[in-house]
Amino acid sequence: MLTRYTRPEMGRIWTTEARFEFMLKVEVAVAQVQGEMGMIPVEAAQAIKSKAKIDVAAIDKIEQTTRHDVIAFVTQVAESVGNHGRFLHFGLTSSDVLDTALSLQMAEGAVVLQSSLKKWESALIRLTEKHRLDWCSGRTHGMHAEPTTFGLKLSGHLSELRRCQRRLDRALAQMKVGKLSGAVGTYSALGPELEKKVCALLGLKAEVIATQVIPRDRHAEVMWSLCLIGCCMERLSLEFRHLQRTEVREVSEGFTPGQKGSSAMPHKKNPIGFENLTGVARMLRSYLTGSLENVALWHERDISHSSVERIFIPDAFILADYGASRMAQLLSQLQVDVKQMQFNMNLSQGQLFSSHLLLSLVQKGMTREMAYQLVQSLSHNLSKDGHLLQAAQQNSQVASLLTQQELEKIFSGENHARAIQTLIDGALNNETGGW
Amino acid sequence: MLTRYTRPEMGRIWTTEARFEFMLKVEVAVAQVQGEMGMIPVEAAQAIKSKAKIDVAAIDKIEQTTRHDVIAFVTQVAESVGNHGRFLHFGLTSSDVLDTALSLQMAEGAVVLQSSLKKWESALIRLTEKHRLDWCSGRTHGMHAEPTTFGLKLSGHLSELRRCQRRLDRALAQMKVGKLSGAVGTYSALGPELEKKVCALLGLKAEVIATQVIPRDRHAEVMWSLCLIGCCMERLSLEFRHLQRTEVREVSEGFTPGQKGSSAMPHKKNPIGFENLTGVARMLRSYLTGSLENVALWHERDISHSSVERIFIPDAFILADYGASRMAQLLSQLQVDVKQMQFNMNLSQGQLFSSHLLLSLVQKGMTREMAYQLVQSLSHNLSKDGHLLQAAQQNSQVASLLTQQELEKIFSGENHARAIQTLIDGALNNETGGW
Amino acid sequence: MLTRYTRPEMGRIWTTEARFEFMLKVEVAVAQVQGEMGMIPVEAAQAIKSKAKIDVAAIDKIEQTTRHDVIAFVTQVAESVGNHGRFLHFGLTSSDVLDTALSLQMAEGAVVLQSSLKKWESALIRLTEKHRLDWCSGRTHGMHAEPTTFGLKLSGHLSELRRCQRRLDRALAQMKVGKLSGAVGTYSALGPELEKKVCALLGLKAEVIATQVIPRDRHAEVMWSLCLIGCCMERLSLEFRHLQRTEVREVSEGFTPGQKGSSAMPHKKNPIGFENLTGVARMLRSYLTGSLENVALWHERDISHSSVERIFIPDAFILADYGASRMAQLLSQLQVDVKQMQFNMNLSQGQLFSSHLLLSLVQKGMTREMAYQLVQSLSHNLSKDGHLLQAAQQNSQVASLLTQQELEKIFSGENHARAIQTLIDGALNNETGGW
Amino acid sequence: MLTRYTRPEMGRIWTTEARFEFMLKVEVAVAQVQGEMGMIPVEAAQAIKSKAKIDVAAIDKIEQTTRHDVIAFVTQVAESVGNHGRFLHFGLTSSDVLDTALSLQMAEGAVVLQSSLKKWESALIRLTEKHRLDWCSGRTHGMHAEPTTFGLKLSGHLSELRRCQRRLDRALAQMKVGKLSGAVGTYSALGPELEKKVCALLGLKAEVIATQVIPRDRHAEVMWSLCLIGCCMERLSLEFRHLQRTEVREVSEGFTPGQKGSSAMPHKKNPIGFENLTGVARMLRSYLTGSLENVALWHERDISHSSVERIFIPDAFILADYGASRMAQLLSQLQVDVKQMQFNMNLSQGQLFSSHLLLSLVQKGMTREMAYQLVQSLSHNLSKDGHLLQAAQQNSQVASLLTQQELEKIFSGENHARAIQTLIDGALNNETGGW
Repeated sequence: MLTRYTRPEMGRIWTTEARFEFMLKVEVAVAQVQGEMGMIPVEAAQAIKSKAKIDVAAIDKIEQTTRHDVIAFVTQVAESVGNHGRFLHFGLTSSDVLDTALSLQMAEGAVVLQSSLKKWESALIRLTEKHRLDWCSGRTHGMHAEPTTFGLKLSGHLSELRRCQRRLDRALAQMKVGKLSGAVGTYSALGPELEKKVCALLGLKAEVIATQVIPRDRHAEVMWSLCLIGCCMERLSLEFRHLQRTEVREVSEGFTPGQKGSSAMPHKKNPIGFENLTGVARMLRSYLTGSLENVALWHERDISHSSVERIFIPDAFILADYGASRMAQLLSQLQVDVKQMQFNMNLSQGQLFSSHLLLSLVQKGMTREMAYQLVQSLSHNLSKDGHLLQAAQQNSQVASLLTQQELEKIFSGENHARAIQTLIDGALNNETGGW
Repeated sequence: MLTRYTRPEMGRIWTTEARFEFMLKVEVAVAQVQGEMGMIPVEAAQAIKSKAKIDVAAIDKIEQTTRHDVIAFVTQVAESVGNHGRFLHFGLTSSDVLDTALSLQMAEGAVVLQSSLKKWESALIRLTEKHRLDWCSGRTHGMHAEPTTFGLKLSGHLSELRRCQRRLDRALAQMKVGKLSGAVGTYSALGPELEKKVCALLGLKAEVIATQVIPRDRHAEVMWSLCLIGCCMERLSLEFRHLQRTEVREVSEGFTPGQKGSSAMPHKKNPIGFENLTGVARMLRSYLTGSLENVALWHERDISHSSVERIFIPDAFILADYGASRMAQLLSQLQVDVKQMQFNMNLSQGQLFSSHLLLSLVQKGMTREMAYQLVQSLSHNLSKDGHLLQAAQQNSQVASLLTQQELEKIFSGENHARAIQTLIDGALNNETGGW
Repeated sequence: MLTRYTRPEMGRIWTTEARFEFMLKVEVAVAQVQGEMGMIPVEAAQAIKSKAKIDVAAIDKIEQTTRHDVIAFVTQVAESVGNHGRFLHFGLTSSDVLDTALSLQMAEGAVVLQSSLKKWESALIRLTEKHRLDWCSGRTHGMHAEPTTFGLKLSGHLSELRRCQRRLDRALAQMKVGKLSGAVGTYSALGPELEKKVCALLGLKAEVIATQVIPRDRHAEVMWSLCLIGCCMERLSLEFRHLQRTEVREVSEGFTPGQKGSSAMPHKKNPIGFENLTGVARMLRSYLTGSLENVALWHERDISHSSVERIFIPDAFILADYGASRMAQLLSQLQVDVKQMQFNMNLSQGQLFSSHLLLSLVQKGMTREMAYQLVQSLSHNLSKDGHLLQAAQQNSQVASLLTQQELEKIFSGENHARAIQTLIDGALNNETGGW
Repeated sequence: MLTRYTRPEMGRIWTTEARFEFMLKVEVAVAQVQGEMGMIPVEAAQAIKSKAKIDVAAIDKIEQTTRHDVIAFVTQVAESVGNHGRFLHFGLTSSDVLDTALSLQMAEGAVVLQSSLKKWESALIRLTEKHRLDWCSGRTHGMHAEPTTFGLKLSGHLSELRRCQRRLDRALAQMKVGKLSGAVGTYSALGPELEKKVCALLGLKAEVIATQVIPRDRHAEVMWSLCLIGCCMERLSLEFRHLQRTEVREVSEGFTPGQKGSSAMPHKKNPIGFENLTGVARMLRSYLTGSLENVALWHERDISHSSVERIFIPDAFILADYGASRMAQLLSQLQVDVKQMQFNMNLSQGQLFSSHLLLSLVQKGMTREMAYQLVQSLSHNLSKDGHLLQAAQQNSQVASLLTQQELEKIFSGENHARAIQTLIDGALNNETGGW
């Protein structure tokens, strides 16, 4: 059902066939090490490696009888190997293969996702650099607050994205574990040595203590890291959706020739890409719910996690990747209207500098309380085309403390510019306070 | 990705093609009424009805240019109609078609789901009737409490299922609304009369006040009702998973010839069906999250709900239907071991009747506090093969208040049997306290 | 910890003391009916009714030994009654009292909540009536779409609120059940007749089939209805937060003398009330999660639902009530700037009527596809101070099909006004399509 | 409302008074550095440090006018300082103080929580060591699978707990950031140098790029780490709840003299502590929902996160701490019945070794498929008091491949014991595969 949002690079990792391929990769590695360790004949290991072939349709058919998909898989693959096939899956329990394969599958999914995130990151860096010193209104509560630059805005999102990339990397690092400890994790059939060697061969570490499965807190961390990528995507999308509003018009999403915004209203150009990504974030949050409930399995495990994981792990990887990739594209086509930013800044009639007026009055000796009331009163009583600078100039209390020159300096934005460049450079250079 | 869990009856409703068919159904009804009302030529309406054909591939191709799937749909269908095609979608905005079609689609999905729920209900009724008076331990905190019957247990689940069916019916009733009020819900292009007639034709009511869309609180109610079906499924599954434990063995899930429980351990017969349904419940809870976040759209609507709804509405219907249907099958094949129920009841050495011993002592004049301490002490000091009846008989305080005959009556279970038949009949007859 | 958001009317229902009072109410009713039915001495029933007194501190002290709060409660209350105290709680199990009392507690909470919702509804009705025909931009995707009126906007929210009130009423109706069926729901100690009479006395119905508890799907429905009130609150808050933006300024939240919007920026007036309610909605969604996981208890029940319910049920009622009440107040103080609405409508340079231009061209014989391209092109090529009406007038293709008079009529808004009054009246009169 | 679950050590951190104390700590540090940097008079800094006093009641009163709690706080504290009070909060915006204080508050909460987790960890280590080689049934799907030891079971939970501790540490490390960059994060009032020095003084790092607030993805990571502690708590609680069942009885929760398990049934001893912790986990999952929705704030921030954070951050810390602490206590009082473990192992009539019988047959040359069918058939056809070893001995196919001695060795459990000691030592020594 997710077809609509599946990029082929990611989608190919989560097909039924790919799943069996990852499982086969595990079985082959096991056989190879078992051959080397003398647990099965070397020729059997070689035969398994060279002859094993997956036939999805045949597996499906066998599963109708066995009602157990791993047994169906083993049966079919063993047949494809021929006589030596009986050494396939030797001493293993299904979860050994399934869970180790799932770790590989997520690791491969992560490579694709990381590359999409990298594109998003690059597009964000380009935008940040381009708009470093393009001034615009900083807004709190949706209301103009103080001036900032569009580049600084973006660098905050960049910094957040980098934290999310780091969380993903960490989540995946702790997920790179395999597990061959058998039915209830005692290595009763195959000792720990085999596991260590097979995991090394597959680029994994061995789980310290498994039950029949790799504990699901690890998977939950992966899902959480995807969910947070969604949240990050949503905050950035929300920024642009706000800035594209008819009344704001500071940015607009790219609109290609032939594109239509509405079936009824021909004039419409809408931020549909960013809206779409807002929805993606909701879905990524949804998937986390299921993953968190999967942690507390019964004893050495029940199988309630399986049906639900088969849905949410692929779907979450696919959606996160789709979202990251689409975000990169949207950023690269974003249209920024720097003049409109300037226009909007003027809408607040100098009030963007009210805090600096307040501060200067306090520095000149007025009590904080009095200064606050004065500036608040000047601001709230501005006429439709008034300006706070003028109102301040005309106020005797202000005039007794601040010269014209001082007043003008306050409203020049000089103070706001001071740190911007250093800040942005810090973000671009990937400084990571608090990590 | 949900293919694995899709029953064809339900799946067919949620294909891309089916979605367009529902949309076409709306367009045709609109054209028909517009013809009748003289808004478009009658011949145009007839041509639309008789000639309109959906070509998914063609729509996809057009969408690559327009980036708007409804426009692509209208363009392709209009072409299939020929000259009169220009009267297709006359005066409509996309959401008029999309949302009205989605209501129809959910209504059709509901018919399938209700039929699966009916099968579940029937299977539960049969089991309830069959095991009406099969006694077993009632358990609280997982510990034996007092005797009950397996039929009574089941009748509680039946009663809960009926509440869930009712909630679904209600959710669907409030979802049977259409909307043709145009771009921002003002009927500026087409008056309310058309909407009323078209809705009537389609078996819907007209939304009272729409924005560009039917408000999403309605959809959230549908998703909630599916989610609660999941919760109900989970409680029942949990009951059977507990009862199948090796140490309990009162029921077991059907196991077909050739079936294999574990790739490593040939002896295993596991309650995999009920575990699977436990997972399904998790997923249905997950989907609700997204739906709740979809309610608060911007102004006359943004489109953030769309991407996520295209995933969770179909997937939730498909999973709820799969779950209900599988539950019906699992119930019909459930193996119940009535002897083992009796065996397990004996495990608690008569303590299942401790509350009745307590009560009788109080009735004979002992203070509640004293009686409690006495019965608690007798219970907690039972030897490995002792029995509370004997311990009570041998206790002088008890003996001074209760005769042998009275004691035996207490432990006979007579009191527990009193109301069972009436209760079960009430549940079977669908009494609905509190609705 | 919720103290900050607790209105006294609602808070008093959820104190420890109040909880015991509701429990006592059940115990007294049971004793009364047991007296009438001859199950306990009439004098005992009378003594219980007249003498029973709750002493929270004493209960706490006893609980330190018994580790069971109901037993501690019964012990303390029995002492307060004196000799007849031993007939208190006669034949009951804790959940009989707890669950029946919780139903009463929720019912009382609902009365307070319904009254807060009523205030919200009234405030919304007043605003709707006042701004019936105040025109403003309808917005989709945050972009101007077509004209609407502020009253129509509000009437949609009114309609949604009414659906939520109805859902609450329904949720509460199905929650008005009591349960006195004993340890595992078999009525082994006390027959069904007592339950029926006690429930009637308390204004409840008897649960059809209980386990040891009233099934938790009922409580989940209540929590869901609170959660949806949150979603409704959020959509309305979001509307006003958007409309208050510096660039939009169509409404603003009341601001009282002495109020300060920001510690640093004296000019700020922020929509903090509506932002606060947005947060409340998040919390109400959060609480639902726990409630849904509470449904699937083990067998005749485990007690895992209890700790969590003691948190989320009171907190959710308190927050929903706080939110509804604050919303009523915010609405009554809302400042609406009708002139600014007009100003903003002009920002889109006539494009609010693009769909009607399109439609008229199609009616005059242009193909839909051609008309769309033409109007889209005119719209997207408007100069900074252009107007779509003028652009249309100057276009030869348009001019060949539509007269000046026809064009002016299109841009007059006449069509949009047609249905508004009827729609709003429908909403005010509480029409309820689809219920 | 959380009073019931608040340990004083944690509770004191989250009172209204404590919150203001943390804020004051920030204000004092700012004044101190501002004094050193010559931004305010040194005497003012000293006066602020020595005289500032919090008066919660006075703050509340001022807030009724200002409707802004930080301004009320600053006003009251400034008054307590006297004349120099006007240099308090100099150049700061509210969020500078609030967010930096919140980071300190969470850090202090974490110290308490980490200590509770340490107690849980210690109790788990003691149990693990004590029951290292106490054999019991490993169970998958709730069904006996293969033998394991109780110590190995516990060591898996230990390993998971350690991962959760590590996640908490990481979450807190990335949360140890302060923010003094002013209204929209531009340092327009106070340069970055001050922030760096103040943060260093407070044991924090400076946020790389803030908006008006520290970005909420950081807080979400903290909430996630608390939520996962809940999941870990739940899995362990679930294990013991299952093992305490009447039919299983391998462990039981401590039961103190005078304790009562049920008001109706005096015999009951229930795992109420572990059930309670299961509920706590649900609540911790609930709180995460709100935190995830808090990430995507508008522009330089809106204030919707605030109301909800004031609820869920304290409540989640309090509950996690309560849960960890109670778990430590429950573990230290856990009663383990090693004999019953042995008894239960015998219930499966030798089938715990079916996988080893299968494996040996394959090693002797039987095909996997044939061996599986043979062992499955022997297992499923065991009589009520049969044993798989005997059935195998009596089967000619088995006998032709395996000697008596070999068969006995298979059923001896020797293989299962091999790795146990090493595994447990690894867990105790805190090996951390995959981190």
